[in-house]
Amino acid sequence: MSRLDLFIDRMVSQRACLDHAAEITAGQPGPVFELGLGNGRTFHHMREIMPERDIYVFERAIASNPDSTPAEDRVFLGDVYETLPEALKRFGATARLIHADLGGHNLAKNDAFARAISPYIEPLLDRGGVMVSSDRMYFDYLQEIPLPQAAVEGRCFLYQRG
Amino acid sequence: MSRLDLFIDRMVSQRACLDHAAEITAGQPGPVFELGLGNGRTFHHMREIMPERDIYVFERAIASNPDSTPAEDRVFLGDVYETLPEALKRFGATARLIHADLGGHNLAKNDAFARAISPYIEPLLDRGGVMVSSDRMYFDYLQEIPLPQAAVEGRCFLYQRG
Repeated sequence: MSRLDLFIDRMVSQRACLDHAAEITAGQPGPVFELGLGNGRTFHHMREIMPERDIYVFERAIASNPDSTPAEDRVFLGDVYETLPEALKRFGATARLIHADLGGHNLAKNDAFARAISPYIEPLLDRGGVMVSSDRMYFDYLQEIPLPQAAVEGRCFLYQRG
Repeated sequence: MSRLDLFIDRMVSQRACLDHAAEITAGQPGPVFELGLGNGRTFHHMREIMPERDIYVFERAIASNPDSTPAEDRVFLGDVYETLPEALKRFGATARLIHADLGGHNLAKNDAFARAISPYIEPLLDRGGVMVSSDRMYFDYLQEIPLPQAAVEGRCFLYQRG
C-alpha cells in the first residue's frame, strides 16, 4: 500500500465520517468546531454539508485558499491549549460537532498530541454531540461509535457523548 | 460539490490513471519521469507500481517525506525549462511514462503553465509512451486517450504517442 493509497483512504474516510456526523446531529442546536484549517478544503466541505451551523475555526495562523477562509469573528486564533479553554468559557458544553485532523507525518508525535489535546476537547461537546478525528483520541466519557460504510477502519475515528 | 470532493476526485483519478498507464506500458523499455515531487506521495505510489523502472524526478528543491525521497542521481534539480531540455539531450525520445501534477490553486495560472511546458514534454516520450497529467496539456502529436473507469472525467488527462 502506497502513501498515496493511505492518503486517499484518509480523505475518503474523513468525508464519509463528516457526512455521517452531520446527519446524526442534524436538527440539534449548537456550534461546530474545526480544529486546524490548513488550506481549508475540509472547512469548505463542512460549510457545504452544514450551511445552517456556526462553524468556528481554531488555528495558529490563517493560510487557507480565499474560497475557504472563515469570517474573522469565526476564528479562534492562537495556541489550542489556550483557545479551547476560551471556547469552553464562552460556549460551555454546547458543541454539536467537532472535527480535528492533527495529521502530521510523524505518527508518534500525532499520537502524543492526540493524548494531550483530548481532555481539552472532551468538555466542549454537548450530549449527543459527535467528534470526528483522523487520529485515535483518548477520552474518558465520550464513546467510540461505528464508522459509516464508506469509511476505512483506522483512517478516521468517531466519538459521541452519550 | 466541495473543494474536498474535487480534491478526492483528483487524487483518485491520478491513482487510477497512473495504474492504467503503468499497465499499458508494462514490459516496454524506458525511464519514467515525475515532474514535481511535492511531499512525495505520488512518487511513492509510482515506485510501488513500477518497481523495475528508473524513475527520475524533476523538482526545484526537494522537500519530500523521508520515505519518499529519490536517490540523488535520480533527481534533475532546478527549473524545468532547463532540466527538461537536459533530459532530452541525455535520454532522447525514450521516456515510457511521464507524470505531472502542476496543480496550484489558480486554474488560469495552471493552464498557462500547461501550455508553456507542453512543448518541453512532448519530445521526451518514446512511441507508445504515456503522459499522465492533472491538467489539460497542449500537444501537437500526442493523442488524448480514454481514462480508466475509476477516474473522473476532467480530473486527470492521458496522452499517448502513437
